[in-house]
Amino acid sequence: MNDIEEGKAFAPKFDPDGLVTAVATDAGSGELLMVAHMNAQALQKTIETGEAHYFSRSRRKLWRKGEESGHVQRVLELRVDCDQDAVWLKVEQQGPGACHTGRRSCFYRAIPLGKAGAVTLEFREADKTFDPKAVYPKR
Amino acid sequence: MNDIEEGKAFAPKFDPDGLVTAVATDAGSGELLMVAHMNAQALQKTIETGEAHYFSRSRRKLWRKGEESGHVQRVLELRVDCDQDAVWLKVEQQGPGACHTGRRSCFYRAIPLGKAGAVTLEFREADKTFDPKAVYPKR
Repeated sequence: MNDIEEGKAFAPKFDPDGLVTAVATDAGSGELLMVAHMNAQALQKTIETGEAHYFSRSRRKLWRKGEESGHVQRVLELRVDCDQDAVWLKVEQQGPGACHTGRRSCFYRAIPLGKAGAVTLEFREADKTFDPKAVYPKR
Repeated sequence: MNDIEEGKAFAPKFDPDGLVTAVATDAGSGELLMVAHMNAQALQKTIETGEAHYFSRSRRKLWRKGEESGHVQRVLELRVDCDQDAVWLKVEQQGPGACHTGRRSCFYRAIPLGKAGAVTLEFREADKTFDPKAVYPKR
């Protein structure tokens, strides 16, 4: 445990599906853009190229962010957490957004706090910065 | 799918273990503090109280952040992502840090980019902001 947390050896702790959690924030604003996953290959490609690669759990394949949309993420810094099961990408987001719904960030809705019972989400970024139908014609 | 992504109904998509991913950033600096998980109860408690609650996978129990250390997280805003399997907490971190190793953030080491082959981590925040042995005497 001490080596994992206090050492300099990179020993990613993949979950039973072979994945670590990957969190991408905008290097300039600090805004959280997206949460995704990486397998060993996505991690290696990201490290080698400095461009964000993820593993798509729905499509079961390696996915270079922006390969379809052109909305590539240049990684300015990559960090790993204490127990090495999550990585943080500080990225320069190319193009109008990171989210497949057509928004800059995937986190465009807030959950109101301080209430018990049913929750109604509040849009914080309702407007789309691009048209997903134009950007992902194959879907 | 459209309702999940474009609607106002909160319908968290828990994984087979009953968890969503929870990402906490410092509301002031934007720094990524930690990545953890929430079950339905942790989510509900966080919403009701405005204090971060997580589910500890190692201890298999609900965990109010700071219950042992006093390093409570006050949630200023809570957001959910497009497919509702991750939440983002913008928090005011009480006390000297969020990480159980004694640092402000769990992401205190960088993975150097642009190299193939073996990776040696680089400490970005080597110094501890508190002594974990003093803060967690029971561990």
